[in-house]
Amino acid sequence: MNTALTKLKTQLAKIEDLKHVSALLMWDQATYLPQGGSEARARQISLVAGLLQQKQTSHELGKLIDDVTPLISQLAPEASDAALIRVAREDFDRETRLPATFTQRLYSHLSRSYDLWVKARPKGDFKAVQASLAHTLELSREYSEFFPGYVHPADPHIDLNDPGMTVAQIQPLFAALRTELVPLAQAIAKKPKPKSGFLNKKYPEAEQLAFGLQVAQDIGYDLTRGRQDKTHHPFMIKFSLGDVRITTRVNPNDLGDAFFSTIHEAGHALYEQGLDPTFEGSPLGHGVSAGIHESQSRLWENLVARSKPFWKHYLPKLKKRFPAQLKGISLDDFYRAINRVQPSLIRVDADEVTYNLHVMLRFDLELQMLTGKLAIKDLPDAWNERYKQDLGIAPPSARDGVMQDMHWFTGMIGGVFQGYTLGNIYSAQCFAAALKTHPKIPEQIAKGQFETLRKWLGKNIHQYGRRLTPQDIIQKSTGKPLSITDYMNYLRKKYRAIYALV
Amino acid sequence: MNTALTKLKTQLAKIEDLKHVSALLMWDQATYLPQGGSEARARQISLVAGLLQQKQTSHELGKLIDDVTPLISQLAPEASDAALIRVAREDFDRETRLPATFTQRLYSHLSRSYDLWVKARPKGDFKAVQASLAHTLELSREYSEFFPGYVHPADPHIDLNDPGMTVAQIQPLFAALRTELVPLAQAIAKKPKPKSGFLNKKYPEAEQLAFGLQVAQDIGYDLTRGRQDKTHHPFMIKFSLGDVRITTRVNPNDLGDAFFSTIHEAGHALYEQGLDPTFEGSPLGHGVSAGIHESQSRLWENLVARSKPFWKHYLPKLKKRFPAQLKGISLDDFYRAINRVQPSLIRVDADEVTYNLHVMLRFDLELQMLTGKLAIKDLPDAWNERYKQDLGIAPPSARDGVMQDMHWFTGMIGGVFQGYTLGNIYSAQCFAAALKTHPKIPEQIAKGQFETLRKWLGKNIHQYGRRLTPQDIIQKSTGKPLSITDYMNYLRKKYRAIYALV
Repeated sequence: MNTALTKLKTQLAKIEDLKHVSALLMWDQATYLPQGGSEARARQISLVAGLLQQKQTSHELGKLIDDVTPLISQLAPEASDAALIRVAREDFDRETRLPATFTQRLYSHLSRSYDLWVKARPKGDFKAVQASLAHTLELSREYSEFFPGYVHPADPHIDLNDPGMTVAQIQPLFAALRTELVPLAQAIAKKPKPKSGFLNKKYPEAEQLAFGLQVAQDIGYDLTRGRQDKTHHPFMIKFSLGDVRITTRVNPNDLGDAFFSTIHEAGHALYEQGLDPTFEGSPLGHGVSAGIHESQSRLWENLVARSKPFWKHYLPKLKKRFPAQLKGISLDDFYRAINRVQPSLIRVDADEVTYNLHVMLRFDLELQMLTGKLAIKDLPDAWNERYKQDLGIAPPSARDGVMQDMHWFTGMIGGVFQGYTLGNIYSAQCFAAALKTHPKIPEQIAKGQFETLRKWLGKNIHQYGRRLTPQDIIQKSTGKPLSITDYMNYLRKKYRAIYALV
Repeated sequence: MNTALTKLKTQLAKIEDLKHVSALLMWDQATYLPQGGSEARARQISLVAGLLQQKQTSHELGKLIDDVTPLISQLAPEASDAALIRVAREDFDRETRLPATFTQRLYSHLSRSYDLWVKARPKGDFKAVQASLAHTLELSREYSEFFPGYVHPADPHIDLNDPGMTVAQIQPLFAALRTELVPLAQAIAKKPKPKSGFLNKKYPEAEQLAFGLQVAQDIGYDLTRGRQDKTHHPFMIKFSLGDVRITTRVNPNDLGDAFFSTIHEAGHALYEQGLDPTFEGSPLGHGVSAGIHESQSRLWENLVARSKPFWKHYLPKLKKRFPAQLKGISLDDFYRAINRVQPSLIRVDADEVTYNLHVMLRFDLELQMLTGKLAIKDLPDAWNERYKQDLGIAPPSARDGVMQDMHWFTGMIGGVFQGYTLGNIYSAQCFAAALKTHPKIPEQIAKGQFETLRKWLGKNIHQYGRRLTPQDIIQKSTGKPLSITDYMNYLRKKYRAIYALV
């Protein structure tokens, strides 16, 4: 094998390992860290981040990438090594564009910004975070300037999480989706609500966790290569291809909270557990984009675990665990309750129909902030105005309005929210393609059999990691580029039936 | 403040943080790591170890230490900064004496050695590990050669864990202790055994854990700066002065296993939680030696938690948790059962009287191996012979003989075992000194009050960390150098009463 390529792989494997060390520090911070350890932990995370940046931007690494670049012309374009060189080049270029001084300024600002937000959010005190958020916006624009040649200042941010995507591609897609979703949500709002109170009876924690983890295993989450712990905010995190963990939270008065978040995170985990095992220690060994990742979590959470066939199999099992709470509840009652649509203020609590309205308005506000069309001081009013337009309601306080998500207070403005809606769109497109090849998937789901679906996803999506671009993966697996058609067909069919719409 | 000193402290703080990052990787390996993650974890641990060694042996660090060394003459000998410079110098000198190539050879050999041991131990197949152990011995001797000027080749090993101690000091101390312990154990062996079967009834895990953790908190273990998790082998580990964790294991058929190991580890943790808080991020912020550390764990485990006053307070509470299992058991029954003396094959299961016999024979065998008087092939016979002499029994297989402890198979030969017995000796000497100042400590213990004792330990032992030497700490806190007098007085008085010896 080429010596430079071998050396490059060794260097990249160290970078991967160091990323995973950093991830463990964060996982422990979210799961088990005692209060007294938090200051030291922040220091440890920052130390490892510094060591990582040194390795990611070292002259030696740059030299190795230069040395191997000519190899690409000798390799098939889809060969792992060609992809490795491409990805290593992309990562190195991005990392080296950012001066270490900028990164330090950014992270030290965001750490203060987060502290301010934690204190101010309960009171909804936007004034207390306004100046800090304005500085975050300045830094977010400064970030874009390190990537000259962009069309929209949000593009470099978007590219970081959804490589290859731009505002120019996303904006028309989201506009079309909004045009469809707003009237659908309005039509549903006029209909009587399904009863759902039984979901809010008392459901003991241990039984909720056991049920969720059992289903996660049924759909294919491998506990010899993963585990579940409790955190305030659920997430999926990876320490190697053989150690992909999920976390969940439990609300003893809400049967859906832990369950759907467990399946969501298990969906993310199935993606990482399904990567080509030869990608261990390689930058190819990661989900390819935020949108594709979210498509895997949403596919299992919504298209599978909020479907009627799924509960045909699992409702009897759930009733065995909670006989008193679910007494007399029919499959139809249950299905309608878990798919209840209700315009609400909080994104993370939103149903399938209204969820994207929350996301897309954030995306649009970000674009306006980044281009200077919207000043931070005017953000709460713009937020409330758009909520009224799209959802017919507005928050009484910034706590449940513009301050509800941590994103703008722990990270830059731009580049994150689009992934949630892209994920929903992709999820339906993938599921439709899987069903086209295997029409019996719904019947199998109704028997608690998920292997056909999981294998289709493994073969068409999971295995590739970053070897193919998101665009290539979607084209190859679904036979067409990203489109909202399958997603809107899915939503319309499902919710027309539930709400007896014309 | 002196600029070089400030720079040195910054460098040392990074070294401390990196040590703690490494510790977290190991903690997770022992607590929660799924099987599939173990290969990557070994790689991550080795990566961080490499980064740590680079920092610990960097030319820059050596230069800073040289720059600040003249400051010592301007500082009081007990001043923290003087101690910091001394300790930094000692650590740097030791780390730089070992060539990186030696460390790599050593760790890669030990990793193979451990794998061999894990496979061979269940069958007691000493032949399968013999060549590997012989190589460990060679490497252990090679280690000593990096520290020329030693009197005994075990001295550099001992100095690593019990700084300032040598074979010349330890050997006569251990010989005297053995002369006392062997006849004491033999006299006890002739007496009828206290009944103890009730300790092996069925004790549900959750209740055992809850009781142990409650007592750990009662003696002062602070859960806002610590936590407890389950592992195969219990241990204490630290990620910062505000995050000192313990682990335990539970045997549902042995009430003593989880409880005494929890108190043992909590004793270690009290030491680390009791360090001067200004030592955060400093190499002074660690227990000073293996022996002193073990003295703190053994003091709480044995002198406190195996005492009669202690159970006067806690037995009624224990009976509330386990009313059926402990029905009709008197304080005296319980006290005699948890202090049952019984010559046995396994060190970690041994009682207070015979425990040191297990330790001292290992120490003596190590010395013989390191000087070449005992060949590895003759080790099992030498082991069995000495067990017969000291304990009157010999193992039927190497599994419960020379292969029982992981120490010689995961580490070098030499330098570790002495700490266990030094700890026992120190523990009684400290406890006697505390009682001399505060004669009411036993009465307080009988009321579940531990503050006087803990504060005495905090003031006289814990706070110093590595600021004073172990020898200075013992001299200062007990008014005399290390001696077996208090320890033998304690054992004789306690066990003469329990066993009605003349």
